[in-house]
Order: sequence, then structure tokens, then C-alpha cells
Amino acid sequence: MIPSVEALRTTLDGRFAEVRTDVRDQMAKFRPVRPGLSVEEYRERVLELIHELAATGRPHAGFAPEYGGQGDVGGVVAAFMALGYGDLSLLVKAGVQWGLFGGAVQVLGTSRHHDKYLRRIMDGDLLGCFAMTETGHGSDVQHLRTTATYDLTTREFVIDTPEPGARKDYIGNAARDGQMAVVFAQLITAGVSHGVHAFLVPIRVDGEPAPGVEIGDCGHKAGLNGVDNGRLTFHQVRVPREALLNHFADVAEDGTYSSSIENENRRFFTMLGTLVRGRISVAGGAGSAAQKALTLAIRYGERRRQFSDPATGQEVAVLDYRAHQRKLLPALATTYALAFAQDDLIADMDRIQRPGAAPVESEQRELENRAAGLKAIATWHATHTIQTCREACGGAGYLSENMLPQLKADTDVFTTFEGDNTVLLQLLAKGLLGDYGKRVGALSPLGLARFAGGQALESVAERTGANKLPHRVRRLTPRSREAQRALIADRAEHLLAGVARRLRPALRKGADQFGIFNAAQDHLLEAARAHVDRIVVDAFVAGIARTPDPAVRALLEKVCDLHALSVIERDRAWFLEHGRLTASESRAVTAAVNDLCAELRPHARLLVDGFGIPESWLACPLLDDPAPTTAGSDPVPDLVG
Amino acid sequence: MIPSVEALRTTLDGRFAEVRTDVRDQMAKFRPVRPGLSVEEYRERVLELIHELAATGRPHAGFAPEYGGQGDVGGVVAAFMALGYGDLSLLVKAGVQWGLFGGAVQVLGTSRHHDKYLRRIMDGDLLGCFAMTETGHGSDVQHLRTTATYDLTTREFVIDTPEPGARKDYIGNAARDGQMAVVFAQLITAGVSHGVHAFLVPIRVDGEPAPGVEIGDCGHKAGLNGVDNGRLTFHQVRVPREALLNHFADVAEDGTYSSSIENENRRFFTMLGTLVRGRISVAGGAGSAAQKALTLAIRYGERRRQFSDPATGQEVAVLDYRAHQRKLLPALATTYALAFAQDDLIADMDRIQRPGAAPVESEQRELENRAAGLKAIATWHATHTIQTCREACGGAGYLSENMLPQLKADTDVFTTFEGDNTVLLQLLAKGLLGDYGKRVGALSPLGLARFAGGQALESVAERTGANKLPHRVRRLTPRSREAQRALIADRAEHLLAGVARRLRPALRKGADQFGIFNAAQDHLLEAARAHVDRIVVDAFVAGIARTPDPAVRALLEKVCDLHALSVIERDRAWFLEHGRLTASESRAVTAAVNDLCAELRPHARLLVDGFGIPESWLACPLLDDPAPTTAGSDPVPDLVG
Repeated sequence: MIPSVEALRTTLDGRFAEVRTDVRDQMAKFRPVRPGLSVEEYRERVLELIHELAATGRPHAGFAPEYGGQGDVGGVVAAFMALGYGDLSLLVKAGVQWGLFGGAVQVLGTSRHHDKYLRRIMDGDLLGCFAMTETGHGSDVQHLRTTATYDLTTREFVIDTPEPGARKDYIGNAARDGQMAVVFAQLITAGVSHGVHAFLVPIRVDGEPAPGVEIGDCGHKAGLNGVDNGRLTFHQVRVPREALLNHFADVAEDGTYSSSIENENRRFFTMLGTLVRGRISVAGGAGSAAQKALTLAIRYGERRRQFSDPATGQEVAVLDYRAHQRKLLPALATTYALAFAQDDLIADMDRIQRPGAAPVESEQRELENRAAGLKAIATWHATHTIQTCREACGGAGYLSENMLPQLKADTDVFTTFEGDNTVLLQLLAKGLLGDYGKRVGALSPLGLARFAGGQALESVAERTGANKLPHRVRRLTPRSREAQRALIADRAEHLLAGVARRLRPALRKGADQFGIFNAAQDHLLEAARAHVDRIVVDAFVAGIARTPDPAVRALLEKVCDLHALSVIERDRAWFLEHGRLTASESRAVTAAVNDLCAELRPHARLLVDGFGIPESWLACPLLDDPAPTTAGSDPVPDLVG
Repeated sequence: MIPSVEALRTTLDGRFAEVRTDVRDQMAKFRPVRPGLSVEEYRERVLELIHELAATGRPHAGFAPEYGGQGDVGGVVAAFMALGYGDLSLLVKAGVQWGLFGGAVQVLGTSRHHDKYLRRIMDGDLLGCFAMTETGHGSDVQHLRTTATYDLTTREFVIDTPEPGARKDYIGNAARDGQMAVVFAQLITAGVSHGVHAFLVPIRVDGEPAPGVEIGDCGHKAGLNGVDNGRLTFHQVRVPREALLNHFADVAEDGTYSSSIENENRRFFTMLGTLVRGRISVAGGAGSAAQKALTLAIRYGERRRQFSDPATGQEVAVLDYRAHQRKLLPALATTYALAFAQDDLIADMDRIQRPGAAPVESEQRELENRAAGLKAIATWHATHTIQTCREACGGAGYLSENMLPQLKADTDVFTTFEGDNTVLLQLLAKGLLGDYGKRVGALSPLGLARFAGGQALESVAERTGANKLPHRVRRLTPRSREAQRALIADRAEHLLAGVARRLRPALRKGADQFGIFNAAQDHLLEAARAHVDRIVVDAFVAGIARTPDPAVRALLEKVCDLHALSVIERDRAWFLEHGRLTASESRAVTAAVNDLCAELRPHARLLVDGFGIPESWLACPLLDDPAPTTAGSDPVPDLVG
């Protein structure tokens, strides 16, 4: 029972299938950007595309209905993802304009900003920047150095770059096109600093830098050269008091500071949290890019033949080699798994952030943590997968005409922008530890002692090799979904409990907090990764359960097996070290991955076609006329002779 | 006892220290190529540099003394590697011109070619191509489709591209600058094909394509855009009989074919074998690129500070974080290890291939196998390491001004050119299996039975978990060099024996050879990788033993520990599955890697300075003025709170 491509695509398109179909249709008409353009030509072309995109009305959908939008928070991210099948500079510039810049004005601003700017932002008439990162501070944004000092005499804020390290850096839309910027700066009034706030600052007037604004150009980059990243230095730039995006905090005319959120730390994270959409979008864009790379490599791998089968004299398609399957098919399975996790993320964001939704802080925090973790895992997966796909296409994969080079170069920065992946995993771990602390803290003193004792016992059992395993992970049947999930979940829990135990001494007075944290940092990051593994496999399982088509379900069950077992195989050293798998069980996992690769090989083309990437965005010489298939040489006798 | 940079560099420079120092000095004067050039501008600039390089007389050294060279086969590869610190397009174009094109004329041709062309090739007056790869056949070069048919009536060879898949593709120097090409084609005379041979074919006359030669342009590529890769299609192109590079085989005027090597297969591999220098050079170039990326990332990691230590209020250098050390320092250790293995490879090549050396076939074969394996491992290591370094530098690592993007893009193709890495590992495995077959074949029937029995017993022991381990790997002391080497060597041997056992049934008549081979392909590749691991660690150990300076030795012992333990850690699942490590020993390996990272952290700068990369080739904004170091935020209380 083989599913239809349409049924598979509908399943993958998930809850936002309609939007995705629309965007595919719209974008199929866009003329692709040819490779090898100069930076200036490429920027010019992407700017044209931004205006074409604005003209479709599509970017408006994410904004508030009062201003002509539809408040379709989820749909706009799904649409953004579909853009990822095309030109990634357009994707990123659109993300800067409507997601970051427009999004900040929408959620951090109030009606005074919305009335004045939202419509022009949606229409692409007012192009803007999101000026957060500074040369000296990228990850640690709470300690940015740019200042916004309230001047009581003129009722203005003075935006200033006090030192070279405080220069805004890598800012999209800054080098060429941006007219305004949302600038993040330390708000100071009456000599008191209230932490980082956002201000709307004009940076260009009639195409020239605004007075006091010094604009630099980041120049040529590894990729995304259609985006004009630049640097902003502010020399005592004056903006009216109303330039403060005052949804969460305000400064009165007399300089009095007020905020609905008392705690400065909490206020900062609440402001940042509203911007979670950026990370979710990047995770989605990475997914689209990985899908496109896999589509190219798998279609090429079916056509490309090299060396012949001595039995038939026919040259063998490279995708029929186990080593080639091993490179591409587990990555394909994980790409499917991530698509389901991403769909959940968007749906939850849509539910939590849709205009009129009642904000529940714990839900918002969970969403932020999950977005941080998924963004890290999805972007690393994309970087790794695209690299593998490039290599799987040999020399052809190195030519720009075959699109893989640009996919690779453009997405590379996804691992470090919108939050460096390592820092994001740390953020997730922090959230998990907080939740864990609450769970443990809720135990009675007796329960706590038992809990701690249990941990210690388990630790002894591991050291001595005496297995005290839960029944469920005994005698692993690799294809048992229950066993797969139990292993992955158990690992996540165990790692988290372990790192909590290791960090506890840091709470003691006089403890070497940095030393304790640092010694456990690898453990901490591993716990976060394991948590994401768990979320992803759970999302895949739930997605299959929602699928009505039995043929799709049957195929996806195998894909899910391959994903889950690849994850277990990757971490099998841990499972062995912790007595979760015996040596023979571990080897059975590897054997099952091999078997699944062979079983899914005949469906590889169907699986990539299921992504539904328009043919016009895939057209390249790599997929042109098949290479001749007459007899070549025969590697086998040589190898065994 | 801390060694001096000079002592460290001298050790690393190894047997070709003098050449390396010279090239560094010469190249330091070359004006670097600025990023963002158009393809045409970049090609033009690299061509200028090729002429500047020729003017130094340096490329001449590799050629035969009779023609003004020095026969310095090893020195020229060492010099090539040093070029890898500069512009990689120059490196590759020089490699095409003097290594591949000039090298083929030198070793496959005879005095009639040498007299006429060598001097002009050395001087860069005659630019040429190495036209082997075809669109349809890259890895399987024995089955290229281009034909060279001897025409008795005119005493010419007719070079022809019989089908689109036989087009020569990805050929360096072809699109713009090459005047001649060494073309690999099936030699046919009197209606009989004698396999692939090399011919010297003019492709351009006065800058225009020669009659019958169709030249295409591969256009913009992921990297190496200073090299003009192109495509060559031959329409019945006539060249004189003397165009055959006739060192190993010739065609007489009457069309009679003769060769000093009877067997066609052996002849082909002998011809290819003389070109081993290309693979060794690529491995070396990859090493230089990895060294440069690590130098940039480690120097940045020492300067870049983010988040503060609560005890001091000072922001912490990112290289002080364990996660950051984990990213960079094991990669640094392996880069050292590979440098020693590379130096051995060059020295052995120099000994075996120096003019006047008596060729010993077994030595040549061993060299080819080792070069294949090291090329694969070194280029994958470079790709992975440069990616890691890019990410470790965050947004700054994405800007072309900071050189990492180009390093990454330029070296990416190293994994698939000069032999696809997967195919090269298969080639190595094939050689290892041949040697293994000889070893096993030399056993008496009783010995063979015992041997087979021993294998089976071991296999049962692994399945049942009953350990029957050699004493030497019991109770692992991670820092014991003996234990490290025993583990790595044992793994290599065990994997090879296992794959030999699995492939043996393919020798039976009527066996499904492809099926048997394919089912074991992942095992086969793993055996090859494990063999390279063994060679590399052995080379590092031997290199340390040769080092006179005790301070250098002491430091390198730690670096070697980190390399060897990282390799064991990476493969610890295998060691656990095969009863070579207990769970607690395996965890001790991880702990030792962490400890070594911390111990080597203070020496990280010294270790990268030891590569001796000229400062002028490292100068970039990434290494400019340190970021301010005043207090930032504090991640620790958040993480444990």
C-alpha cells in the first residue's frame, strides 16, 4: 500500500496546509535569482522581490486586524517557511522587515506607533532594522551598552554608542535600505538605568544617514548576500519621548519611569519572549532548506550511476549503495520528524499569541524554551544535512548552478543568529532545571530523601555495572515504538536529574559558581539536546496518530522508526554506559537502521516529493538528462579478491 | 616547562622545515586577494599570482633536474601546503598546473614531451589541464568514455567525445587559461581497446578554442572561484601519434600497441599511482586550511568575552567555557596528529618517487593506499573543523572580511575531488583486504582453521557479553599511551578481520557479489577509517619520539593524549559493544578528554602559533582590538537557581 504524493504532502503540510499551498503557488511565479551576482546587484534584486512580496498582501496577514492584517500568527510563519524553498536572502530580508522590525513595532509598541507605522511597514514602504546585537555583545543581550538617556529639558531620548564595542553590528536592512531601526538600548532616566528597552529611531533621511547616525557595511558575507547587513553607531542622536516602544514600560514627560512588570530581569525576558517568532521562523527556514537539499541529493542519487553489478552488468544507482543510503535516509527521516515538531510549535505559538489570546506565562515560557531548543537542533541538522547532500552530489554539488552551494552558505549563519545554538541550548536547560527544581521541591522531606537516595543508588549501579533497569528497556525490540520512546525519554530525564545534582552545590554560599557550572556545561548541553530529541520523537508519533490516510500512516511509521533508531544509534555509547542497552541490543539498533534504510530506499523519491517543493525551484542541471547506464567497472571482485 | 613557539614550529615543520620557511617568507609578500571579486576579476587575479609564483622559481623544484628542476618531490608538496595558508584558488590552480598537468607530462610522458614542454610548463608559459573526470564518470575513471582511436592512414589519434556523459567536466584551467590538456581516453588501435591512456591535446590556439574542441564554463562555484573550471568536448580532434604520453605504453607507426605492463588493470593503476602526489597535496592543503581556521577561532576565543564570572565580576573569555574548549581543542589535537602523519607521507613519497629511486611496487601500493585514506580523513577533518571554527566565531565568522567563509567554501570540494572520500576509503579497504588475504593465506590449513575458529569464538564472546579480552585493554588508564594505541590498533584489526569474513562468501561461484559487498559496505568503510586512525596516532607518537626539545615533547604528549582519547571517545560505542571498554572505563575516557581540554587551554595560543602562519595572512577585523571586558551578566545563578 503506497500512499499518493498528495496525501503525503497534505500530512506534512499539517495545520497550515492552505497557507503553504498558496505561498507555493505565488512563489512559483517569482523569477529565481541567478548565482554569481555582485553584492550590489543581489541586494537590488532582493529589494525588488521584497516589494513584489509586499504586493501579494501575504506579509500583512501576521499583523493585527485593526491595521489590515489578519492576526494569523501561525500562518505567517508557515508562509515564511515556504519561502525557504526559494531564495534565502529574500526569506531573511522578509524576516527582518516583517518579523523582527514589524514584529517589534507590533508587540513592543502601542497604538501611537501602530497608527503611524504599521500600514507602511506591511506595505514595504517603510523598511526597517532590528538593531539589537552589538559588536561586543551578541549572546549576552541583557548587557548591551548602547544608551537611551531621557533628557527632561527637551523631552527627548538621546541614543548613544558610548564605545566601539557598543556599535550595532550584523544588522539586516542597515547597510542600504533601512529607513528606521528598532534600537535596543539601556534606558536611563533621572540618572537611573532601567535595563534594555526598544526605541524607534530614524536612521536614513532621503537615502542619506540621519544626522548623528554613522552607518557601516558588513560587506560580503559567506551567504545571504542579498541582505544588506550593516553597522550602526549613534552619536547622541535625539528622538522624541514617544520613540520608546512603550507596551511594557514608559517614561512620562517628567521623566518618571513606569512598567507593568516590576522585576527588571522578568521585564527584559518578557519583552524578548514576544519575539519568539523569529526563532521559530529560523527553525522552519532551516527545515525548508534541508528539505530542498535532500530533494536534490536523493533525486540525483537515484539517477547517478557508478560502478556496475557483476550479476547484471548494469551500473548501480548510487542511492542503492548502503553507504549512500546511510548518508541520506536517516537525515531524511529526521527532517520529517522535525517538520512535525515544527508544526506543533507553530500551532502552539498561534494559540498562545493570536490577538485576543489570554497570555499564560507558563505556556509562553514553555514555548520559548521549546523554540530555543528546536531552533538549535533544526539549524544544526540543516547545516549538517546540506553539507552531506552537497558531498553526495560530488563535483556537481559544488557548482552554483545546482543550488546546493548557496543553500549551504545561506543557511550556515542560522546556527549562530537569532541566538547562538549553544547559548540557546543553555537557555533551554535553564528552563528545564527550573521546572525540575519545582518538581523536586514539591516533594516532602521524606520524598526528597528517597529521591536523592534513588539517584545515588542508580549512580552506584552504573558504576558497578549492576543493571537495575526499568523493565521497559529490557530486551529491546528495536522496532517497538514504546521501547524507542522509553529509551529516549529515560535518557532525557536521567541527564537532567544528573545535571541538577551536579549544579546543586553552586547554591551553597561561597561556592565557585562558575567552576561548578563550567565543569557541568557539556552535561547541561547534552541534557537539553536529549530533551529536544524527546519532544521531536513525540511530535512525530502524535503527527502520525493524527493522519487519516492509512497508507501515509504505514509509511510514516517506518520513517519514524528510522528517525528514532538513528537517534538511539547516535547516542548508543550513552545507553551502553548507563546500562540501558546491552552490547547485542546496541548492535541490533545499528542493524535495524541498516534494514530500514533498505526498506525505505524504494520510497525515497516519494518521501522527498512529499515536501511539495515546486519544480520551478528545483530546476537545475543536476536533475537534467540521466547519465548513460551501460556497463561500467565492477568494484566487487576487486574488493573481495 | 613551556616550549618556545620556534621550537614547536620547527618540530611541526618536520623534515621539510627549510622549504616551508622559504615559502612562508616568499608568500608573505604576496598581496592577498580581496573578497567579493567577480568570477572574472578573481580568475584574472589568480592568473597574475600564478605568474608571480612561477617567477619565484619555486614550482620548478619538483621537476627533473635535466630540465632545470631539483627533483625535490617532497619539498614541492611541502611548499604547496604552505600556499594553503594563503589563497586556496591559487593553491588549486598551482596544483592543476604544476602538480596534475605538469606532473602527468613528467611521469606519464617521455623525453619527446619533456624536451618540448617541461620548461614552458614550469615557467607558467604553457598552461594546461588535467582532463580526466567526465560528466558521467568521476569515481569510476577506468570506464571513461572518451576515445582516442589510432588512424593508421594519417598516423594520428582521433580524440572524441562519443556521448554527452563523456564530456570532460570540472576541469581546472579549462574555462579560460589552459592551452593544452592531458586528456584521459580509451586507446583504440586496430579495433582493439587497450584501456585508459593519457594524451597531450592542444585545446586553445591564440586564446580561441582549437578546431573541434568545444569549451564550456562551469561558472560560479561554492568556492575556488579564482580557478577556471570548465568542460571539454572533443569532436574528432586529431593529434599526432606522439601526443600519447608513452612512458608505460606506446603505439608504433603501424598501429601496434606495446606496454611494459602486460595486464591492463595493473597498467591503469600503475599510471594512476604515479599521480598520488595530487592526493597527498590535497590532504596537506586541507591541513593548512584547518590550521588557519583554528588559529583564527582560538585567538578570537581568547579575546572574545561573554557573560561574567560572579566571583570576579569579569566577563569570561569564551575559550574558558568547557563547551567551547570541547569544540576547538580536540580538533586542534587531531590537526597536530594529522600534520605528523602528513609529514611521514611526504617523506615516504619523496623516498619512493625521487628521481633515481628504484621503484618497489609494494611500497608504492602502500603509499597510494595510505594517501587515499589520509586524504579522506584529513579533508573531512578540515571541513568539519572549519565549520566548527566559523560557528565558534559567531556572526564575525560569517563575514568574508574574516576569512573563515572563504576557507570553508574553498576547501569544501576537497572531500570529493582528487577522489571522492567514500570511494577512497573503499580503495584503502580493498588494499587492506588484499594484504590481509595474503597474511591469512600464508597460514597452514591447521593455522587457518584455528584462525577461523578464533574469530568465531571471539564473535560468540561478543554476543554473549563474556569478555575474553587481551590483558592490555583491561583496566584502562586513559593516559597510558600503550593502552590508547592498543585500543585503536585492536579496533582496526578486528574490523578488518570481520569484514574479510563477511566478504568471503562473495568468492563462491554464483554468489550475489553486489549484495554481499553492499551489506558490508558500512563495515568496510569503518575498517578503513579505523586503519587511518591507527596510522595517525602512530605517526604522532613517532614524531614526538623524534623531537629533541624536551619542553616540546612534554607539551605534545598531552596533545597526543587528547587526540588519541578523542578518537577513542568518538568510537566508544564500538569499544563498549565489543567488550573492549567497560562502562566506567568509557566514562573515564570522556572525563580525561575534559581534563585535557582544561590542561591544554593555557597553551592553546602557543599551539596555534606553532603552525607558523604569517601574521599578514591572518590579519582581519576578527583579531582587531579586544572587546571591552567590564562586567556583563551572570549566567550561573540563573542556571542553578
